[in-house]
Amino acid sequence: MGTRLESVPAASPLAERFSAVRALTVALAAPLSDADATVQSMPDASPAKWHLAHTTWFFETFVLRDHVAGYRLHDDRFPFLFNSYYEAEGARHARPARGMLTRPTLAEVLAWRRAVDAALRDALPHLPEAAQALIVLGCHHEEQHQELLLTDILHLFSQNPIEPAVWPGAPKIPVPMPGPIGWVERPAGIAEIGHGNESMHGGESTSSTFLPVYSATSAFAFDCETPRHPVMLAPHALADRTVTNGEWAAFIADGGYRDPRHWLADGWAWVQAEGIAAPLYWEQRDGVWTRFGLDGRRPIDPAAPVTHISFYEADAYASWAGARLPTEAEWEAAASTYDPREGNLLDTAGPVEPRPSTGGPAFFGDVWEWTGSAYRPYPGFHAAEGAVGEYNGKFMSGQFVLRGGSCATPRGHVRASYRNFFYPHQRWQFTGVRLAKDI
Amino acid sequence: MGTRLESVPAASPLAERFSAVRALTVALAAPLSDADATVQSMPDASPAKWHLAHTTWFFETFVLRDHVAGYRLHDDRFPFLFNSYYEAEGARHARPARGMLTRPTLAEVLAWRRAVDAALRDALPHLPEAAQALIVLGCHHEEQHQELLLTDILHLFSQNPIEPAVWPGAPKIPVPMPGPIGWVERPAGIAEIGHGNESMHGGESTSSTFLPVYSATSAFAFDCETPRHPVMLAPHALADRTVTNGEWAAFIADGGYRDPRHWLADGWAWVQAEGIAAPLYWEQRDGVWTRFGLDGRRPIDPAAPVTHISFYEADAYASWAGARLPTEAEWEAAASTYDPREGNLLDTAGPVEPRPSTGGPAFFGDVWEWTGSAYRPYPGFHAAEGAVGEYNGKFMSGQFVLRGGSCATPRGHVRASYRNFFYPHQRWQFTGVRLAKDI
Amino acid sequence: MGTRLESVPAASPLAERFSAVRALTVALAAPLSDADATVQSMPDASPAKWHLAHTTWFFETFVLRDHVAGYRLHDDRFPFLFNSYYEAEGARHARPARGMLTRPTLAEVLAWRRAVDAALRDALPHLPEAAQALIVLGCHHEEQHQELLLTDILHLFSQNPIEPAVWPGAPKIPVPMPGPIGWVERPAGIAEIGHGNESMHGGESTSSTFLPVYSATSAFAFDCETPRHPVMLAPHALADRTVTNGEWAAFIADGGYRDPRHWLADGWAWVQAEGIAAPLYWEQRDGVWTRFGLDGRRPIDPAAPVTHISFYEADAYASWAGARLPTEAEWEAAASTYDPREGNLLDTAGPVEPRPSTGGPAFFGDVWEWTGSAYRPYPGFHAAEGAVGEYNGKFMSGQFVLRGGSCATPRGHVRASYRNFFYPHQRWQFTGVRLAKDI
Amino acid sequence: MGTRLESVPAASPLAERFSAVRALTVALAAPLSDADATVQSMPDASPAKWHLAHTTWFFETFVLRDHVAGYRLHDDRFPFLFNSYYEAEGARHARPARGMLTRPTLAEVLAWRRAVDAALRDALPHLPEAAQALIVLGCHHEEQHQELLLTDILHLFSQNPIEPAVWPGAPKIPVPMPGPIGWVERPAGIAEIGHGNESMHGGESTSSTFLPVYSATSAFAFDCETPRHPVMLAPHALADRTVTNGEWAAFIADGGYRDPRHWLADGWAWVQAEGIAAPLYWEQRDGVWTRFGLDGRRPIDPAAPVTHISFYEADAYASWAGARLPTEAEWEAAASTYDPREGNLLDTAGPVEPRPSTGGPAFFGDVWEWTGSAYRPYPGFHAAEGAVGEYNGKFMSGQFVLRGGSCATPRGHVRASYRNFFYPHQRWQFTGVRLAKDI
Repeated sequence: MGTRLESVPAASPLAERFSAVRALTVALAAPLSDADATVQSMPDASPAKWHLAHTTWFFETFVLRDHVAGYRLHDDRFPFLFNSYYEAEGARHARPARGMLTRPTLAEVLAWRRAVDAALRDALPHLPEAAQALIVLGCHHEEQHQELLLTDILHLFSQNPIEPAVWPGAPKIPVPMPGPIGWVERPAGIAEIGHGNESMHGGESTSSTFLPVYSATSAFAFDCETPRHPVMLAPHALADRTVTNGEWAAFIADGGYRDPRHWLADGWAWVQAEGIAAPLYWEQRDGVWTRFGLDGRRPIDPAAPVTHISFYEADAYASWAGARLPTEAEWEAAASTYDPREGNLLDTAGPVEPRPSTGGPAFFGDVWEWTGSAYRPYPGFHAAEGAVGEYNGKFMSGQFVLRGGSCATPRGHVRASYRNFFYPHQRWQFTGVRLAKDI
Repeated sequence: MGTRLESVPAASPLAERFSAVRALTVALAAPLSDADATVQSMPDASPAKWHLAHTTWFFETFVLRDHVAGYRLHDDRFPFLFNSYYEAEGARHARPARGMLTRPTLAEVLAWRRAVDAALRDALPHLPEAAQALIVLGCHHEEQHQELLLTDILHLFSQNPIEPAVWPGAPKIPVPMPGPIGWVERPAGIAEIGHGNESMHGGESTSSTFLPVYSATSAFAFDCETPRHPVMLAPHALADRTVTNGEWAAFIADGGYRDPRHWLADGWAWVQAEGIAAPLYWEQRDGVWTRFGLDGRRPIDPAAPVTHISFYEADAYASWAGARLPTEAEWEAAASTYDPREGNLLDTAGPVEPRPSTGGPAFFGDVWEWTGSAYRPYPGFHAAEGAVGEYNGKFMSGQFVLRGGSCATPRGHVRASYRNFFYPHQRWQFTGVRLAKDI
Repeated sequence: MGTRLESVPAASPLAERFSAVRALTVALAAPLSDADATVQSMPDASPAKWHLAHTTWFFETFVLRDHVAGYRLHDDRFPFLFNSYYEAEGARHARPARGMLTRPTLAEVLAWRRAVDAALRDALPHLPEAAQALIVLGCHHEEQHQELLLTDILHLFSQNPIEPAVWPGAPKIPVPMPGPIGWVERPAGIAEIGHGNESMHGGESTSSTFLPVYSATSAFAFDCETPRHPVMLAPHALADRTVTNGEWAAFIADGGYRDPRHWLADGWAWVQAEGIAAPLYWEQRDGVWTRFGLDGRRPIDPAAPVTHISFYEADAYASWAGARLPTEAEWEAAASTYDPREGNLLDTAGPVEPRPSTGGPAFFGDVWEWTGSAYRPYPGFHAAEGAVGEYNGKFMSGQFVLRGGSCATPRGHVRASYRNFFYPHQRWQFTGVRLAKDI
Repeated sequence: MGTRLESVPAASPLAERFSAVRALTVALAAPLSDADATVQSMPDASPAKWHLAHTTWFFETFVLRDHVAGYRLHDDRFPFLFNSYYEAEGARHARPARGMLTRPTLAEVLAWRRAVDAALRDALPHLPEAAQALIVLGCHHEEQHQELLLTDILHLFSQNPIEPAVWPGAPKIPVPMPGPIGWVERPAGIAEIGHGNESMHGGESTSSTFLPVYSATSAFAFDCETPRHPVMLAPHALADRTVTNGEWAAFIADGGYRDPRHWLADGWAWVQAEGIAAPLYWEQRDGVWTRFGLDGRRPIDPAAPVTHISFYEADAYASWAGARLPTEAEWEAAASTYDPREGNLLDTAGPVEPRPSTGGPAFFGDVWEWTGSAYRPYPGFHAAEGAVGEYNGKFMSGQFVLRGGSCATPRGHVRASYRNFFYPHQRWQFTGVRLAKDI
């Protein structure tokens, strides 16, 4: 071990990044009991323990098992339990039954994490480039699960009549309401969108072209963000901020949820069938709109961005407001001149929530912004080869693209070309809406 | 009557078209018993009697009621029964319960048709331009229902173990198998798609801009086809014909329905949940693949285009074949130089089915071709005002675009800009697939 | 056999009874269109055409096919379509899809009936005793379907917003309200219940012991009514009439459907899940309770027996009234001294409905009375052998016994020992309730 | 405290019983992690933590809150969470969402138990007779939950692919197969069944007549066991033991699950819909039938009683074997001469499972025996007044009676008159079958 350590500078950027990502996940789960970390509150959500384990399974399987000679699995029952949707990796536990896994315990999963982390750090200096690329991919993959862990825990606690707060937050200080939306006009013409890292599309390692050698976070992209390509934009204007809770309350007060003319047919059917009348986690108590968050139940902040809304709600709001949703191309073309590391993003464990705008156009953080674009492949898209390629391409039907990252997205994870995607009825993520209009 | 006749040229093109459309619907339903015309075989389908009545309701409501002074409804209970999804037109009978309407009888509905037709023909010469535009719209609307009437009846008869043939067809004469697919290469660049009828976007009658005065079929378009706009195409190639039954049988024989790698995640879930293993209406009998059609059950014709496949199946086939689906822009750019009135389309009542290709690229008729494009609004799209605007825009989520028309589409109804749309699992229409690929 | 031939005149009572039963079924269906007779309004119900066909299938299969040498089936596709639940008779069309059978038409089914009737009447004089017993059974079987035909048609028409009347009835003449319930006290002790026809349990024809030679209606019984056996009764009292619509309206007005204390747990779950707040077919219009019947929608008659209630509702009403349901043994012991041919029963085609009591205890007709007895076998019960034995025994779980017959039960069909049975939530039959109490 | 202690003799039989019951529940849950105790594996089951809490809620609510002046609830949020089905006690958490309650933690629930136990022991010497009767009832109630806790945990662990053993058991020592079933003949005549404690039906405390002053376990009965009453028995014979795993394997091998003739119609529908082919927890591995139990997965013991079968399976087996299920009256009449404290019952925490018969008729322990009797009220039954009366009577539809107690029933809890009840498809309890036949 000592020998290897000498050849592994502690300051290796990849090792540091790996350690930081792995540590943040554990920190996020720190307030959770074994039970909190085990229960699955709905089929869309996964237990926190499952997130802790599945991200570990990724590194153990695709890096240690595949690239470290003689590595023996920590527990050979775990792959079946903690594989997710990788058909190529064989049989796996049914998704809706993830909450049945009271064993292994949270402590056992954390021990597995530590063992895999140690083995991977030991092995890292000797790993081939392809394996290092898989570690980079694994870190990005784990950052996605960090956000899901937070939103899944929020959903679980919302199901408990006690409404526990994951992190008791500080008292909220009221801020002034933002002024009316400002419209930023954008001319028609050709724009380029998609990720442009050339190293991803050339060179010899054709079998894993989307897995670049680690250099800087900005150089990484998921396969679905590529290739970079020209698109034709019509003249349009984008709002300079997202819709607020206060504006949403006005939509509700105006009967927005009861008038079918604002809604897509599928959305109206969903509203009727589910009895939807407000964003998820909103409840009116003594005449006051409240919301449930990671810091418990509190009155809504009218100045903060509305969140936990579905695509259907976002679209209906836009229709009610005489506007529309931006396309993902419009959004990316406008956002690409902003720094994706600014904004209200996730840095450390603690309560997270969207915060009121402090002025000026901002495209990153607070809430994922529903776009009007169906999640479909870019021209020339090819999924990566092998099991890790079973990742983005197979979900390209029925979902809509969201852009920009949220208060629960790890800082550094999001970028202008980043394509998040969810089904149009889903709303347990930190989702919001920015308006657009034709000009 | 004689007086009016003098003032109504029998040869009025609109009157002739109206009469022709109305007559074809009745002819299509002629082989049906009262019971055949009443039963609803699944929530997606409607009874033939309902199609006959709903199309009549359209003319009675939007033309006679709204534009003919003193018109009295034939039966004031019918609007509730035969409105479909027009929320603005008030309460309506639940869609899945359309099959409960044993009364009014088929004979009563046909009598209503005759009464409305006579009243409308009488009124036609005196109608304002806006009402004439509604008649044009109503004819196109009825042509859509003609196709649905055929596919819904086919589905109903498929549910009967007796498998009745609507029209006993002639014996099939085997034709030679088409050769392998030819690929037509298409360069990158800007193309224009969408309907370009300028009269639709100017003038004073802003409240119904998409309802042009009748002049020629080609001048009409539904709102969702507009506006005409530039799109950017990547270099690609399109197959010169659609996939055949014989090719599909090879896909089945190769285990295509059992290998998750070919399938979108939603598609794979659908295959598993529904036990899908072949196109709708296919059954293997004594080792031979047969299909059920409007002429009963017969062996598949390996040279004919495959039909009754879902988007999921089309996408999986393309993946298996190392290709992809065309986008709707690619399709329209390529198809726009062909005559939409050629091809195997619906002319008269009688058995219809896709027929083997006779060589040369053909884009219209036989089968609707699934594209890879989600059905979403074009840049600058605005729905028409009023109840008739509740037509296309509200369905713009969750569905995919199909192009080209089928053997059950009335000749003259389809055009290069025509956008049909269905959910990705639906397959009771005459749906097929043309391959595309990046070059 | 020859001996019997001579001794069976054409005017044989069995031939007469057969003809009368067959004719009544056709008469009941006379007002129905082909469509009316084809549609299935819910999985529990069957189309009228199906009843017409299934009862014909019974005679063709078990009598003509099995007992007439050289008989050829009228149409060899029909057994698959019109067998019901006889597993021993092979594959059959799925019950919930009975409404898909638009072919054969109503006219074709009626032609089949005529052909089978003619063949059976021709064969009757030559049939062995066992086959004659099957005809007796078939007549009783068909009488059951006559009642179902009426209640199924009522349900179908109730689903049509037009609410057609099968038979336009005469105006209702109000009658005086009955006085309060009178209680008939019954002492404790041993009683005998069940059918006592000795010929059913002795003799040589052991393979069909429950199928007696036809002599008189009263001699017939279904297997589940046997054997006659002693039971121990506790002291109790029975109401001298069933509960009225007026009394039921008081139960509703008192919040009976909203107070869980009156309800069995399963019943309360049903009320909540289905939003039950009144008997089936009741609707409040302009503050007046109305009901839908075979003569259309009319105000309820407060003096008439309440009907179309579930076991759960009957039980809740009894609980609210401080009483309970009678057991089937209590009911039979009390009813056995009354003539089962009196009362409001079905004689001819025409509107049927429960009628106000005219005084004095009455146990037969108007409404089937829910008892508190689960439908289970009597001590010593044995199902008949063969396919016809798949009749009563297999339904002996989850259902409750009803007694007494209704306005839709053919006169002569019901008797004191008759056990009808339905699931506790079902209420499309003419079901009502008589109270009992411990003394 | 000291003062009170002096007035509370440690040897008070009720105090001792209370302490013993409360201690056993905690001991049963001792092997469980917080997560194990929190997850709900199906709607029918409850989490172990819920059982621990709900039984505590019973004592806190009905004894401490109602009978101890000045008592303050330990946590006023708990009644909403841990009330079960007592509508009279107000709103409560939805049953299928019991598994969402990760908070309070297991430790917090155990602390609540200790606090309530201490308060109740302090209060006990001063409690009125009615409150003492409620403690007796609460102990019996908790014993029921002890059995459910075990069967619910078994179900939960069965859902985990790891199949954890709650208690690693000792190796099984094979025992000789029992000989063929012996038949004990029973003559016809009048028998008395039901609980005969006269104190329950007289005296002054009419409002809680089924809650006797504590004297001996045998004096207690639930309301549904009363009143004692005569029944008429037909001549019959009962098997001298229950059916074994080995006999059940023969039923499977003979195609018992695939032949509809053996099954009730509801049972056959259940077998088809659920794909049932063996008892719950049975799996064939390498050609050997295994079962999952509280000691993990092991081969079945052919000599031991079969368990985890539904009523439908029990009934089908009996039909296949040419026999039938006993009625509850037959069972009780035969069992009443045996000592209910003998047999394989629950004494302490540890693995429990049915054990091979050691000869001689035995009616208590091992497995609950399905009877052919629907769970309905005895003649003269009246539910207790108030919330505690919402206990047995409301479940008297749709369920069947089981008799005799199982290996998971606390010794002393069961008696000849004891009526357990479950729905006919349920099988996660330790359920088995004894045959009967007519003679």
